[in-house]
Amino acid sequence: MSVLTSGDHPDTASGATAANGTNGAQVDLGPATALSCRECGERFPLGPIFACTSCFGPLEIAYDFPTEGPEALRARIAAGPNNIWRYAPLLPVPADVAEHPNLNPGCTPLVRADRLAAELGITGELHIKDDSGNPTHSFKDRVVANAVEAARAFGFTTLSCSSTGNLAGAVGAAAARAGLRSCVFIPHDLEQGKVVMAAVYGGELVAIEGTYDDVNRFCSELIGDPIGEGWGFVNVNLRPYYAEGSKTLAYEICEQLGWKLPDQLVIPIASGSQLTKIDKGLKELIQLGLVEDRPYKIFGAQAEGCSPVSRAFKDGHDVVRPVKPDTIAKSLAIGNPADGPYVLDIARRTGGAVEDVDDEQIVAAIKLLARTEGIFAETAGGVTVGVTRKLLAAGVLDPAATTVVLNTGDGLKTLDAVAGTTGPSATIRPNLDSFREAGLA
Amino acid sequence: MSVLTSGDHPDTASGATAANGTNGAQVDLGPATALSCRECGERFPLGPIFACTSCFGPLEIAYDFPTEGPEALRARIAAGPNNIWRYAPLLPVPADVAEHPNLNPGCTPLVRADRLAAELGITGELHIKDDSGNPTHSFKDRVVANAVEAARAFGFTTLSCSSTGNLAGAVGAAAARAGLRSCVFIPHDLEQGKVVMAAVYGGELVAIEGTYDDVNRFCSELIGDPIGEGWGFVNVNLRPYYAEGSKTLAYEICEQLGWKLPDQLVIPIASGSQLTKIDKGLKELIQLGLVEDRPYKIFGAQAEGCSPVSRAFKDGHDVVRPVKPDTIAKSLAIGNPADGPYVLDIARRTGGAVEDVDDEQIVAAIKLLARTEGIFAETAGGVTVGVTRKLLAAGVLDPAATTVVLNTGDGLKTLDAVAGTTGPSATIRPNLDSFREAGLA
Ligand SMILES: [Zn+2]
Ligand SMILES: [Zn+2]
Repeated sequence: MSVLTSGDHPDTASGATAANGTNGAQVDLGPATALSCRECGERFPLGPIFACTSCFGPLEIAYDFPTEGPEALRARIAAGPNNIWRYAPLLPVPADVAEHPNLNPGCTPLVRADRLAAELGITGELHIKDDSGNPTHSFKDRVVANAVEAARAFGFTTLSCSSTGNLAGAVGAAAARAGLRSCVFIPHDLEQGKVVMAAVYGGELVAIEGTYDDVNRFCSELIGDPIGEGWGFVNVNLRPYYAEGSKTLAYEICEQLGWKLPDQLVIPIASGSQLTKIDKGLKELIQLGLVEDRPYKIFGAQAEGCSPVSRAFKDGHDVVRPVKPDTIAKSLAIGNPADGPYVLDIARRTGGAVEDVDDEQIVAAIKLLARTEGIFAETAGGVTVGVTRKLLAAGVLDPAATTVVLNTGDGLKTLDAVAGTTGPSATIRPNLDSFREAGLA
Repeated sequence: MSVLTSGDHPDTASGATAANGTNGAQVDLGPATALSCRECGERFPLGPIFACTSCFGPLEIAYDFPTEGPEALRARIAAGPNNIWRYAPLLPVPADVAEHPNLNPGCTPLVRADRLAAELGITGELHIKDDSGNPTHSFKDRVVANAVEAARAFGFTTLSCSSTGNLAGAVGAAAARAGLRSCVFIPHDLEQGKVVMAAVYGGELVAIEGTYDDVNRFCSELIGDPIGEGWGFVNVNLRPYYAEGSKTLAYEICEQLGWKLPDQLVIPIASGSQLTKIDKGLKELIQLGLVEDRPYKIFGAQAEGCSPVSRAFKDGHDVVRPVKPDTIAKSLAIGNPADGPYVLDIARRTGGAVEDVDDEQIVAAIKLLARTEGIFAETAGGVTVGVTRKLLAAGVLDPAATTVVLNTGDGLKTLDAVAGTTGPSATIRPNLDSFREAGLA
């Protein structure tokens, strides 16, 4: 579970950190001009803050977007590097971002999944956006790369986060490349594999005797303390910049479809930020004329063991009631998703839905995707493929439409999910008779 | 997954007859025109054979390369897909290869490694060619993708190999995407993680009670038996096609350098095939005028615990004496490297060298690369970075030249190599006092 838990943002709000780093200096974050409250619209200068001082609403980046027209902009993007920085004109990063040392994530494959489509009864185009191809093998590299640029702009020298998984490695790796110090906080009882992945990049890794909630509370304390001066917590005081990284998924999908919107997208929900930002990215592409304005539907996917948004959607509620997560899809196990209400709004506004699948369905979906397309997904990918299957069976997804399903991470990182039920077809002696007896010839 | 029924295929997959697979039928493998013996030059029609019937020398692909001139060819490549198929005019694959379902590896990052260069005392340009970004996170996807196209051309319906690691997953995944049956053979005592990675793609995975040598002997038996009809063993009867996939590393490196040759390359040696084919690829680029003809030096890297080529190089021998491998760099642990003599020849001809590092140096190099560049390499990457460091210290590598070092795999797959010495900086209670006491603030 790698996105900051939720509802705790107002109490660690802007006060202690607003002055950090900038103090009136000019901040060059390209087309980003200000921070804007998603709830009340109040504007703030660009800085390391994340909550509105008036209403505690989340802050988003406001932009001055290019006015060169869609054809010129598409050409500029096409001439850019083969990573997320080709979209620098639409991100809170300076124009020369590609020259900074950075992990340069993005431009991951959009895989035409005909064999999976056949098994699912999809007659239209089915694509998997496979983000396991990023440098540390999850979509987190996209958001962290944007946070690194904000950290640079605000003069931060330490990159930090709390994490139990993908985010720790992404922050450690990005800080190493950028030449920033990193200090990452984890619960003390993580599996050794995850600890190794978080520690190998040589930054500080601090194990906290306590639960993940304890780790988060401690990080909030740290942000308010003088010790935390000069520290950029990627998903706390850098959150507005960090979150924008998810827009690049929308940009890439549409560019890879030949600058077209898909009809349907199936997106996993942890905090809900990714889904919200993909919708924002699609709307920006329409606004800029980069894609034709036509309807698209956004579907959210959760694990049954952590399905507060799916529950609220089905119950017709606008409010998301927190739950205690219990699922193998640990990268989605946020019981109190901060952007849950926005997700509900987007699913309803676009004519989509939010659905969940249980752990057994997640494992079956991981194996289905591996068997049909050779893509070994993290549990979060099992959630989206499983939900796709369920929504098709329920007649909610249109099988004749163009559908994009996200895989946001790598099966190598969640081997345990399938290990118990995945093994050799047979064990034989090294001779042909023994092979024949196994019935595989 | 198509089921193989015996007799549904005219091909015979046995060792050394040129009539195999094709039987006079036209085989469209693009610019590939024939197989040519590397030793005696004898030519054979394209088919699933791998050894010269006259002298038992290895067979290589002979081509009819494009004659359109370098400028037009560079433009054609640039207009191609963002994967190895952009180089289809130089590979044994049909022109429409990109439309076949395939894992589409390649176009992995060439990372400018300034921080690593500074630590190593390199004053020229240092680049890491990071092949962990491939679909199954090793360079094996490149070679297997080429083998898949050959398997298709010869009408094979089962893709097979023996493996103890990366190759098993690469073959399983590629076969799944291509809609081919797969049957992969492994020793029965592999670690569970590797077994899961080989099995998750749903093909047949057969564990053999015996050593890796027993597995290989069994596979040779299978190729000569009627059971093996219609089977493409990627690194046996499809080896000439498979091996060509490594040329794409040379093409990409030069294209990413702006169609320039690097001065120095550091390449790991397992069978030696990769190094040999990279040299072949560089020579082709020169021959086609795609890069300026200037000298380059090729350096081979081995682990001390499996260093037969390094030993022969240092002893001034032309013959490589087999060894029994004992090293953590398991993906390089081939004690009797088939292409060893060719590697010696290339290292000597280009003014390069072959060197080795011990397991401790490998681990230190993995950590150095992770800490400076945020790249978590497989042990093979530790070998190349470690050898780079050693050759610089010895004054053999030129610190002022442009150097490319290969990382061919992903640290996630060899976690054990660093697990024992990689962990948290500190374990604390969740409060600021405890953090201060740890001395990290
Ligand atoms: Zn507000
Ligand atoms: Zn010969």
